[in-house]
Amino acid sequence: MIIVMKPGAPKSAVDKVEELIVTKGLEAHLSQGKEVTIIGVVGNKNKLLNENIELMPFVDKIVPVTESYKLTNKKFHPEPSRIKVGDVEIGPDTLTVMAGPCAVENEEQLMTIAREVKKAGAQFVRGGAYKPRTSPYSFQGLEEEGLKYMAKAGREFGLKTICEVISAEAIDAAVKYVDMIQIGARNMQNFQLLREAGQSGLPVLLKRGLAATIDEWLNAAEYIISAGNPNVVLCERGIRTFETSTRNTLDLSAVPVIKEKSHLPIIVDPSHATGVYSYVSPLAKAAVACGADGLMIEVHNDPAHALSDGPQSLTFENFDRLMADLQGYVKLAGRTL
Amino acid sequence: MIIVMKPGAPKSAVDKVEELIVTKGLEAHLSQGKEVTIIGVVGNKNKLLNENIELMPFVDKIVPVTESYKLTNKKFHPEPSRIKVGDVEIGPDTLTVMAGPCAVENEEQLMTIAREVKKAGAQFVRGGAYKPRTSPYSFQGLEEEGLKYMAKAGREFGLKTICEVISAEAIDAAVKYVDMIQIGARNMQNFQLLREAGQSGLPVLLKRGLAATIDEWLNAAEYIISAGNPNVVLCERGIRTFETSTRNTLDLSAVPVIKEKSHLPIIVDPSHATGVYSYVSPLAKAAVACGADGLMIEVHNDPAHALSDGPQSLTFENFDRLMADLQGYVKLAGRTL
Amino acid sequence: MIIVMKPGAPKSAVDKVEELIVTKGLEAHLSQGKEVTIIGVVGNKNKLLNENIELMPFVDKIVPVTESYKLTNKKFHPEPSRIKVGDVEIGPDTLTVMAGPCAVENEEQLMTIAREVKKAGAQFVRGGAYKPRTSPYSFQGLEEEGLKYMAKAGREFGLKTICEVISAEAIDAAVKYVDMIQIGARNMQNFQLLREAGQSGLPVLLKRGLAATIDEWLNAAEYIISAGNPNVVLCERGIRTFETSTRNTLDLSAVPVIKEKSHLPIIVDPSHATGVYSYVSPLAKAAVACGADGLMIEVHNDPAHALSDGPQSLTFENFDRLMADLQGYVKLAGRTL
Amino acid sequence: MIIVMKPGAPKSAVDKVEELIVTKGLEAHLSQGKEVTIIGVVGNKNKLLNENIELMPFVDKIVPVTESYKLTNKKFHPEPSRIKVGDVEIGPDTLTVMAGPCAVENEEQLMTIAREVKKAGAQFVRGGAYKPRTSPYSFQGLEEEGLKYMAKAGREFGLKTICEVISAEAIDAAVKYVDMIQIGARNMQNFQLLREAGQSGLPVLLKRGLAATIDEWLNAAEYIISAGNPNVVLCERGIRTFETSTRNTLDLSAVPVIKEKSHLPIIVDPSHATGVYSYVSPLAKAAVACGADGLMIEVHNDPAHALSDGPQSLTFENFDRLMADLQGYVKLAGRTL
Repeated sequence: MIIVMKPGAPKSAVDKVEELIVTKGLEAHLSQGKEVTIIGVVGNKNKLLNENIELMPFVDKIVPVTESYKLTNKKFHPEPSRIKVGDVEIGPDTLTVMAGPCAVENEEQLMTIAREVKKAGAQFVRGGAYKPRTSPYSFQGLEEEGLKYMAKAGREFGLKTICEVISAEAIDAAVKYVDMIQIGARNMQNFQLLREAGQSGLPVLLKRGLAATIDEWLNAAEYIISAGNPNVVLCERGIRTFETSTRNTLDLSAVPVIKEKSHLPIIVDPSHATGVYSYVSPLAKAAVACGADGLMIEVHNDPAHALSDGPQSLTFENFDRLMADLQGYVKLAGRTL
Repeated sequence: MIIVMKPGAPKSAVDKVEELIVTKGLEAHLSQGKEVTIIGVVGNKNKLLNENIELMPFVDKIVPVTESYKLTNKKFHPEPSRIKVGDVEIGPDTLTVMAGPCAVENEEQLMTIAREVKKAGAQFVRGGAYKPRTSPYSFQGLEEEGLKYMAKAGREFGLKTICEVISAEAIDAAVKYVDMIQIGARNMQNFQLLREAGQSGLPVLLKRGLAATIDEWLNAAEYIISAGNPNVVLCERGIRTFETSTRNTLDLSAVPVIKEKSHLPIIVDPSHATGVYSYVSPLAKAAVACGADGLMIEVHNDPAHALSDGPQSLTFENFDRLMADLQGYVKLAGRTL
Repeated sequence: MIIVMKPGAPKSAVDKVEELIVTKGLEAHLSQGKEVTIIGVVGNKNKLLNENIELMPFVDKIVPVTESYKLTNKKFHPEPSRIKVGDVEIGPDTLTVMAGPCAVENEEQLMTIAREVKKAGAQFVRGGAYKPRTSPYSFQGLEEEGLKYMAKAGREFGLKTICEVISAEAIDAAVKYVDMIQIGARNMQNFQLLREAGQSGLPVLLKRGLAATIDEWLNAAEYIISAGNPNVVLCERGIRTFETSTRNTLDLSAVPVIKEKSHLPIIVDPSHATGVYSYVSPLAKAAVACGADGLMIEVHNDPAHALSDGPQSLTFENFDRLMADLQGYVKLAGRTL
Repeated sequence: MIIVMKPGAPKSAVDKVEELIVTKGLEAHLSQGKEVTIIGVVGNKNKLLNENIELMPFVDKIVPVTESYKLTNKKFHPEPSRIKVGDVEIGPDTLTVMAGPCAVENEEQLMTIAREVKKAGAQFVRGGAYKPRTSPYSFQGLEEEGLKYMAKAGREFGLKTICEVISAEAIDAAVKYVDMIQIGARNMQNFQLLREAGQSGLPVLLKRGLAATIDEWLNAAEYIISAGNPNVVLCERGIRTFETSTRNTLDLSAVPVIKEKSHLPIIVDPSHATGVYSYVSPLAKAAVACGADGLMIEVHNDPAHALSDGPQSLTFENFDRLMADLQGYVKLAGRTL
């Protein structure tokens, strides 16, 4: 931590700051510049947690030097993590594809879609049973019934299953039926839910919030891991910007940034990011090209009648073509699909 | 709802769309332009809920004409709502001030602050008992114990009390102790929590999400009201932008926009918006000047040692001065404080 | 300037950085933390201008401590500047109102509007003769002819005149006719134009760019001042965000932030910020309430037929009412109008 | 164009709007809904250019149906354009790489770099002679001298040359020396410069503004083309968002969006977008994977001593490796490098 004093700060003000630091058992290193004085603080900064040094006289600002996240930080865990979901491994050697409908609508629909995504090569079937919807008048999901269909689809086609959870009750239900749970973008800073997910015992896919910086995202993952669950996978799904041609702006830079800052795997969801099915395939390829460990893709047997997010869903034909096209990119990335 | 066809759409494609609309029991009005054909849809658009018309051949886009929120919409409720919290009324004739610490730290702290904010003229004491914090290693709140202190402070000083809730359990506890609950920015689209708040029986302060458009915010309020609770007050607290001089960017335009779109009262929180105490007073005055129905202000007996958000808290002296300065603005606004 | 080393940086890497600093004639102050080493650099950092220290082995990042703008910086010029335009002073004691049409359309229109804004109490008539328009097919302005009308309106009604310039030619023409020139948001980082404006001899109103941080804005002002022209007034006119209810998001926090960082006056343009006339008056009052030194307001004799930005223009009646309403706010601000 | 009336608009108000439309020689098609009435306008909407219909009584809003850009619009030019720069073609069959230093620093530096980028397979050498810099105290470029070195480098190594222009004078100089000119992000809406570039006779690379929507970007291109120059190539280089891990947020979705809306080629500049050299290669591959027609990459012989943007420049070694790695992606894209 570095403390920057205001220009013209009198010696007495600098002394006061120094004194506080030393009193708390840390070291203060002064650099007296022509314009400003800066004070480097050495030691365990938690000892200063209850001091708002920026409010002391003549203090200009505090510059943090180390990140607040530890367990997700690559600095203390240089090797990339490999998250196991049954016999599927999400990590640096594989490309994991999670595909399926935005919402589980009925048993037949899910089974039809699951059969297809398996055939095309996906390892996971995804499907929403609890739907966070902007309007209270939109379809809100089948809840536990939907989870049962997920479990059945998983068993029948040898697929891993993943479902979004939006409450403690949803987690309690999900643990009984699916292999992995997902925290959605709108709940990325629902810290209560993060802690509960951390105690669920299931691997967690943590989507990036629409307005979340990468540091806040890693701090959210820290909540899950610090609750005892190291099996976290990140998912970039677009951030909110001024551009309206796409629903959100897919931030593919987040892939190499996460690879540099964290050991956690990161997958990409181009369906929710763009909201437009014709942009999904080019961006899925781009995600693999820049190092993503996997993809989440919305696939529907009849997008024109999907109860949720039809316009961004791939038809079976488009999904088959994407999976075929991806082969070359997966190979160039030195991964296996 | 308007359907815009692509240029060169053949008559057969237009016919198909028209047919679907008519089949569903609605009317289709065609406008055949030189470049494009548009189709106005008349009738209850819920009948088209399961049809993703944008995926039909040669359809370019769908343009919604009416808002998805109804109960919060001024069009159907032209008079401004007055929300009663005991004998305090939040609405067009008053200026309601909610003041207090970011976090309830202990009984003595809260009682000291409550006494002061009462003396300075605030109607509510605010204080966080459940703190949503970016890092899991920051202070997370006193929980139910904090609520008890809130109740005591309210009784002792004749103040209304408001507390943020972050889970169903927190709501269950809050109902026992406080007069109003708050949904924080990070939970604005925690739809489960919105529904639970809607069933709590208490008036709800709904903060705007960091990345929420005004329409999404009104839709979030719609969740609460449609769960049976019409007593909703909105709170603008800054949105996320590229500017870093302030923690968020206070969007004061939201005040006149909300006044035009909705009948719900709106208050402004300049403390969280800016994160810097010296910007709080000017923006508090600005909020009153542009029509806000109230203010939420962080006040602390010892900002330099506050456990949360000290740098944005006003000292007693600064808060007293602000309350005195506000008098003129409240009068110009034709309100009473 | 502070250099932060990566965790585990070997002593040899730290030595190399230290050596470079000393070789360049500066001092290096080491703080050896448990996790990381930081190096405070003391002396004239321009000596390091050609060294990209962040690329040296084991360097994590560089943290600048001082701002890159000097002439606009309050630290070196603590008193607020008063910019004189003839007998009008823009600064801390006055509230300067610049009003008029978005575009000068013809002589009669401008004279009619100038007469009205004078009567209502404005000190400046504004009017665009060179219009930067998003589409090449929109009205682009009357150019020099428009400037002549501006000069005439100024003379006839005793108003100061201000006009946007978009090129060196426009500046050459403007100097002959108007009292102050304006650099628009889209040209805020047209550095060539800034330099030319700096050499024009006229006071300059510098609008904030749609995506400009406050620091970049002050750096843009630095271009003008360092070209020899200290008479710069800043104008906040909305930044680009995800919100679409208003054309841009008016960042009123910029007013107190600028007051803290710079000595330059700042005015606010709620017309361009919102794009909607009914939001202009509330936000104009808010601007005065939070400390703005002036306002720029679009006024039109017939908004329904304005060639540019009609929807955001006030009618004469609305402008009169705003000017009357402002009196109270100007008084509370301790200014004179 | 669609006009949406407010709920409860009386027939007389609707009649007035209809009357205006008919008077102007267009057709009005009414759709009378339960809540609102909408009016489709058929005919040449330029006839309504001087009417601000949104200001007529009871008009709620205007919804544009067609884009304001014509010459850049794919609807009227379905085939992708191929822009020829000498014997290099930028378009759907090729992958064009423009590489070189951010700034031309001296003759030797440029020749060294040009030799290397040619050897590695680039078709263009890029290099800034006129540098738009945030601070007036940063290096501003060698100007015409720099252009001469560019011309020499082009001749000597058989490379096409491209240089940014920031003023009419710079364009006049550039035409004498280089093969293609570039309009930078900060000048994307410097409409004067766009027109001058349109008259220069040289092909133009138009970078996207930091806060520009894709529609505004295409409108900016429309300025150039409508000035008589159809040879425009777009360049995505990152937009401004709240994320700070990268200098800007590279919006790769813009690639498929542009391919759908326009016939113009689009290339991607990951160097300026990220500001960090280690993110350049993954994002360059991603750009090719999602359909970009080319890349602009900063390469420097000695990034640690570059006068501008050293931290984002690739060393020769890194650039060689990138060019080798790209081969596979170019092949998958069905292009030639």
